[in-house]
Amino acid sequence: MGLSNINYAERLREFPLLSNIKDNELRILAGMMNERQIAAGENIITEGESGDEVYILMEGTVDVIKSTVFGDLFVVSTLDAGEHCVFGEMAMIDNDKRSASVKAKTDCKTISINRKNFDLFCREHPGSGLELMKLISLNLVRNLRKENDNLRMVYQALIEEIETN
Amino acid sequence: MGLSNINYAERLREFPLLSNIKDNELRILAGMMNERQIAAGENIITEGESGDEVYILMEGTVDVIKSTVFGDLFVVSTLDAGEHCVFGEMAMIDNDKRSASVKAKTDCKTISINRKNFDLFCREHPGSGLELMKLISLNLVRNLRKENDNLRMVYQALIEEIETN
Repeated sequence: MGLSNINYAERLREFPLLSNIKDNELRILAGMMNERQIAAGENIITEGESGDEVYILMEGTVDVIKSTVFGDLFVVSTLDAGEHCVFGEMAMIDNDKRSASVKAKTDCKTISINRKNFDLFCREHPGSGLELMKLISLNLVRNLRKENDNLRMVYQALIEEIETN
Repeated sequence: MGLSNINYAERLREFPLLSNIKDNELRILAGMMNERQIAAGENIITEGESGDEVYILMEGTVDVIKSTVFGDLFVVSTLDAGEHCVFGEMAMIDNDKRSASVKAKTDCKTISINRKNFDLFCREHPGSGLELMKLISLNLVRNLRKENDNLRMVYQALIEEIETN
């Protein structure tokens, strides 16, 4: 079910990188998206599962959670609706499994678009599709830089642990 | 200096994800790119430096190299021209420093496009620009998944090291 509510187009307008998308196209995009209400404690996406929707967090806070090789879960990051968060974009792009779980920390509202609708929108509105891909790419680059920092930190801890023993 | 040689458009054609770009636009793109010959042992890009060009490896093999917090260098991955490699896309997208060095392992040939020309091409040919962004995004997702695996591996080694001591 698409979103008929013009308010979603207004909320999408808040993303700085979407400022080049025309009003009418933003409303078409909003109409291709689905709204979900998620209760605190529920998973929005689950690591290892299939799924091709990319999400925008409209209300609330979520934890991004990964499992270690030992099966422990750890929180990689916490996202708040105020930050204009996008998540779930990896599996949408490469058609592989979800790389992390995303769990509602508070009651949340998301809007999402699946790959089929995303591709359809991009084909019909390539200029706006390009702006969306730029937003998603910037998100990916930020996550890669964070992951680089994490790897550096864990590697340092490993070397120090080896040297003190 | 742009590439007048139609051969580059032919080589770009080899990228499966660029198959939707029309011949004339691929030639325009090739004309906005610069060719470089790099001798084995030279850096093509250097970690920590500024730079806004994204590269396609046309001939040869390169090492992607990062430094640890201790200043040691380690090879993250090795890319070969046959794999249709793209590198340098992170700094082009987020305008931040280079996250790794890329060093020619053999004599190499690259073609590259800077942010200004990339943006210009995208503005004038949004449909083709979208295909380019998809190629770059897929590359980012693959790198993120690799980085996730690396982090998991180093984390496991750290836990094992702690437990054995």
